[in-house]
Amino acid sequence: MKKTINIAVVGLGKIGSYLLNELNSKKKDIYIKTGKKIKVVAISARNKNKKRQFKINKNIFYTNPLKIINDKKIDILIEAIGSSDGISKKIVEKALKNKIHVITPNKALISKHGDYLAVLAEKNKVNLEFEASVGGGIPVLRTIKEGLATNKIKKVYGILNGTCNYILSEMEQTKDSFANVLSKAQKLGYAEPGNPKFDLNGYDALAKVKILSALSFNNKISNSKYLMEGIENIDSKDFEIVDQLNYRIKLLGITEIINNQLFERVHPCLVKKNTYIGNVNGVMNAVILEGNPVGESVLQGEGAGPGPTSSALMSDLLSILRGNIKYPFGISDNRRKKVKIYDMNKYSNSLYLRLEVKDKPGVLSIITRQLAKFNISVQRLIQIPDNKRKTASIVIITHEANELNSKKCLKSLKVNSNILKAPVLIRLF
Amino acid sequence: MKKTINIAVVGLGKIGSYLLNELNSKKKDIYIKTGKKIKVVAISARNKNKKRQFKINKNIFYTNPLKIINDKKIDILIEAIGSSDGISKKIVEKALKNKIHVITPNKALISKHGDYLAVLAEKNKVNLEFEASVGGGIPVLRTIKEGLATNKIKKVYGILNGTCNYILSEMEQTKDSFANVLSKAQKLGYAEPGNPKFDLNGYDALAKVKILSALSFNNKISNSKYLMEGIENIDSKDFEIVDQLNYRIKLLGITEIINNQLFERVHPCLVKKNTYIGNVNGVMNAVILEGNPVGESVLQGEGAGPGPTSSALMSDLLSILRGNIKYPFGISDNRRKKVKIYDMNKYSNSLYLRLEVKDKPGVLSIITRQLAKFNISVQRLIQIPDNKRKTASIVIITHEANELNSKKCLKSLKVNSNILKAPVLIRLF
Repeated sequence: MKKTINIAVVGLGKIGSYLLNELNSKKKDIYIKTGKKIKVVAISARNKNKKRQFKINKNIFYTNPLKIINDKKIDILIEAIGSSDGISKKIVEKALKNKIHVITPNKALISKHGDYLAVLAEKNKVNLEFEASVGGGIPVLRTIKEGLATNKIKKVYGILNGTCNYILSEMEQTKDSFANVLSKAQKLGYAEPGNPKFDLNGYDALAKVKILSALSFNNKISNSKYLMEGIENIDSKDFEIVDQLNYRIKLLGITEIINNQLFERVHPCLVKKNTYIGNVNGVMNAVILEGNPVGESVLQGEGAGPGPTSSALMSDLLSILRGNIKYPFGISDNRRKKVKIYDMNKYSNSLYLRLEVKDKPGVLSIITRQLAKFNISVQRLIQIPDNKRKTASIVIITHEANELNSKKCLKSLKVNSNILKAPVLIRLF
Repeated sequence: MKKTINIAVVGLGKIGSYLLNELNSKKKDIYIKTGKKIKVVAISARNKNKKRQFKINKNIFYTNPLKIINDKKIDILIEAIGSSDGISKKIVEKALKNKIHVITPNKALISKHGDYLAVLAEKNKVNLEFEASVGGGIPVLRTIKEGLATNKIKKVYGILNGTCNYILSEMEQTKDSFANVLSKAQKLGYAEPGNPKFDLNGYDALAKVKILSALSFNNKISNSKYLMEGIENIDSKDFEIVDQLNYRIKLLGITEIINNQLFERVHPCLVKKNTYIGNVNGVMNAVILEGNPVGESVLQGEGAGPGPTSSALMSDLLSILRGNIKYPFGISDNRRKKVKIYDMNKYSNSLYLRLEVKDKPGVLSIITRQLAKFNISVQRLIQIPDNKRKTASIVIITHEANELNSKKCLKSLKVNSNILKAPVLIRLF
């Protein structure tokens, strides 16, 4: 690798412009650590004159990022646009084909097209780095690929979405409603002001789970069945109840191998208050890896925001500047296993169920009969009457119950006229 | 680098022999990840016929490790003997001078001779890797050097000695004495059966602190003044009292930069029960890094034992096999700053003091007068009488008090005939 490295930054939103400032202010530090001089020779965004936190050099500005590759000699391209397809995919594709290293924090792109792009990178003998796509500033991907390189990893789980974790922590503390807390999160910049759907429905966490699986288990990225539930339906009532039972509610992403099959999932969980994961609050992210021989490893840090994300992007940059070509997913594409998906209908788990019912004789017996019919046994049952409305909340913690059976059971309860709302189900962790 | 890499393992205690088994069983995995075939061509220990957990190949056994380097063509030497000088230092020195990469978990060696050995490695263009020297299986050194490469780190602290953390956790839970818990720890293999002194007096944790400082702040390893206190004098009585005050006792290693000066210390601390560090129990280690722009990063994992240590040694091996030469401390020796040591006498901290006194009028006034004389103000005072013995425990939580003043004050109290034992001092975190 030559001594001066030309860099292009494509996408100048919060992350892109923060990174640009980091690149400029840390040139000397980078030279000391790698012996390489970096030079940002091109930048691109949709709007040249938009107000940004940091000034940009308009002389090297491109509206069309694809043009950069024709015009300039680029060594490393940093893609910070952030969509799974469209121009994000096109520019990364074009860069790799032109033997340009690529760095991206784009989990949507990597979780969808990562396999294809990794093959492109390998074929063209360049690096494709995406540390910032999972866990913000937590260097979890590098830890899996390098720090725990020869461990056999069995399970990875964690809190992977800071927006959801903030909302859940805040709902717990303030007893406020989902809608109110969400709008507060939006005001504070912890949730997308426009459309926070992909954070709230679990999609963002699931994209990260897919990337973690691929690295941890050396498989290709999965794209078929999964269990993805968000936090939109969690009620402040649930927080009150689980608090008394000594639980907290967390949105977890979990991936593990069961009988050589991959089981990935994202859903809210009840976690005990005195566990490690039960005490990761606010916008923090945390990843727990269970490996052999290392045992349990925990990584925690700020999961989002321009600062932590830039930290991860810079670590990718330094890794490339140090000079060797690495497989994007740790091993060559032809060694990566095809995914066999675990049938989640076979899975069993303890459940928290909350049913809002008419407070009249016989209702409880209907419910318990249905549970028995679907082989779901009760570990704990609490009935909380609302005398004014003549209704009651029935809260049930079940013993381990089969997924398929619980689905069927809930469906059967939904149509019962004594049950006033769709039952709430949260899995225990 | 050629395709087949010759390895020598020197030191076949628990760690060395476990590692040897890992090397043999993970050859294929290593080949897949790095394209290199490894071959263990020499092993060495004092006793060829000692019973070990894993069988060794006696045909490649050396009693004198120095002979290996004359006899065989070695590419990578793994030193797992573990002393700070003597044969450990000699073999590492000789290997580096012969352009052989070195991997070692030996914190005593690195914290004492790391600067010198790093220069040797740099001059001979080989790697000197010591990930396993801090935090067992937690890849904390690699995280500082690579994952958080361009962050400005301000402070690093954590639980760095699993033996002490086990003993403190166990004393808290069982209310048992230090001596009893220590002997239990020795039976369980959590403390050295012979001489656990270097774990208990803070020496082991301090060695790790010095390595962490060097990597985090780009300074040479410090070797002058420090604050090193162990856990030998902590009494089960203290656990009872701090429990009521909502604290736990943890042995922390802390390093930070204050006014461009390095302040390293290891001592027991009172930490709030509801903090992250207050909930790292048993043999777990944890390291917290405060950096900019990444924010707070936490790494937690099993801090000792052959499994986690081997995991770290293997990550070093893979890093070397991937092929480039890295500075042992992240930057070239001539860029590493000389250490300026912070004068700890200037430091201020809240203190927990426990004094065992004669229960008679006037004693409390003597104590409070002394405290006032040394400018130490009381935040909270609890007197616990022991009516049978006509003694009392006086527990004081102070406001921030200057180190030098507190030292002088304790000295003055020690000689007072109404104070029956040397006062106990634990710093608040």
